[in-house]
Amino acid sequence: MKGRKESRITLVGAGPGCEDLITVRGLRALRSADVVLYDALVGKKLLEEVSESAQSIYVGKRCGKHSYGQDDINRLLVECAMNYGHVVRLKGGDPFVFGRATEEITYAESFGIPVTVVPGVTSAISVPASQGIPVTARGVSSSFWVMTATKRDGTFSEDLMFAARSQATMVILMGMRKLDAIVGEVLKYRGPATPMALIQNGTLPNESCVLTTLGKVPDCVNRIDTGLPGIIVIGDVVAEHPSFFQEEVQRVLYSNL
Amino acid sequence: MKGRKESRITLVGAGPGCEDLITVRGLRALRSADVVLYDALVGKKLLEEVSESAQSIYVGKRCGKHSYGQDDINRLLVECAMNYGHVVRLKGGDPFVFGRATEEITYAESFGIPVTVVPGVTSAISVPASQGIPVTARGVSSSFWVMTATKRDGTFSEDLMFAARSQATMVILMGMRKLDAIVGEVLKYRGPATPMALIQNGTLPNESCVLTTLGKVPDCVNRIDTGLPGIIVIGDVVAEHPSFFQEEVQRVLYSNL
Repeated sequence: MKGRKESRITLVGAGPGCEDLITVRGLRALRSADVVLYDALVGKKLLEEVSESAQSIYVGKRCGKHSYGQDDINRLLVECAMNYGHVVRLKGGDPFVFGRATEEITYAESFGIPVTVVPGVTSAISVPASQGIPVTARGVSSSFWVMTATKRDGTFSEDLMFAARSQATMVILMGMRKLDAIVGEVLKYRGPATPMALIQNGTLPNESCVLTTLGKVPDCVNRIDTGLPGIIVIGDVVAEHPSFFQEEVQRVLYSNL
Repeated sequence: MKGRKESRITLVGAGPGCEDLITVRGLRALRSADVVLYDALVGKKLLEEVSESAQSIYVGKRCGKHSYGQDDINRLLVECAMNYGHVVRLKGGDPFVFGRATEEITYAESFGIPVTVVPGVTSAISVPASQGIPVTARGVSSSFWVMTATKRDGTFSEDLMFAARSQATMVILMGMRKLDAIVGEVLKYRGPATPMALIQNGTLPNESCVLTTLGKVPDCVNRIDTGLPGIIVIGDVVAEHPSFFQEEVQRVLYSNL
């Protein structure tokens, strides 16, 4: 244990994967951390920015073991802040987009520990973008809806139905395992020719994208590991992808500068 | 004119306003630019990062004069890339969220000029977040819908109706001037006690936030300059704001680290 450092917590959005898509403010916070608690979806190279005297602790839920539940993470955050000073909670994407940030803030504040949030580039927008798919495009789509397909109890959210009935670009996170059911639901309201993209490992060197249509999903699911996380995009903007009329692509619009 | 530099364009999302909310990759691009074309919503301090030998050109549409239309910007982008090399097009928020990025990419690519996109932190998520309002929160909202209220022809988008009928957090950009009409439309489907926030100058030192409910908007419009840009958030997540049950607040969850 170090001297009496001020206890504080910063929730930092690490961005969609590639390490230089963190914000300048987020990187500064990371470098000043005494302890870093990080998730599965955080770019590993970012951890090289952590000070040598600091600890980095993996609290992801995706390594088969599910060793840390949300309550464990909440407790660890507070414990580390009290014992070591500045804790950075590094989350994939943006902390407030399905990041359970509110729960961590509420818990930490109940112990009188101040919490600051540094927003991040959300995967919901930037991963489609890295494929050249804009979530909005003038004359094509003037709104986008970001959602998880299912509610806490595993049933479909009614919002999925309203989104499907609208003209919005639908961006579905954490839905790969329920791909068939999602497609079945959306097909009730949108035609089988509706463009659709399935993107995995977004912004990373192994990024992959399957371009298809709602009606043709069954033909391409065997090319996807639906056990891996991914992002589902449904809407006419997907046809903006320069290779939409090819079968499958690996094009990435971003490149290292 | 300099020597034969390679012509290329990078569309960079500058983030919501404060200069250190740009990504590391975006900042690197900005520093390497030969010409920067920037918008009204870009944090002015960011321009200090531009190389002394580079030009910065304001192409915003918000100074009363509307001197640059989209066609002018497209042409200027290509002209600058051909004459000077690397052009950075610096946009507020994220280039693909109502940023007209697709039009600029299509135009530049038609001249054979390669375009790269660097995503940004979108105001749609980060400005509510800076007030402590999460766009999603477990048990409160499992989806959010980002939209402009009106279509190109000025009529209300049908999507507004579907969004109002759903449980989604509604985030409305570029809607301040139509605030009354938006509220009237949403009130058809959501109750007058629905929490609502009106945020202006998000993430900047003069950030302001009015917390209200759908039914009470008429009581507070006189405290807002609806001529200034702002973000409208409608949904139960607004009640997560720690001062929701006070009248008006100036609390900012972000702080400089």
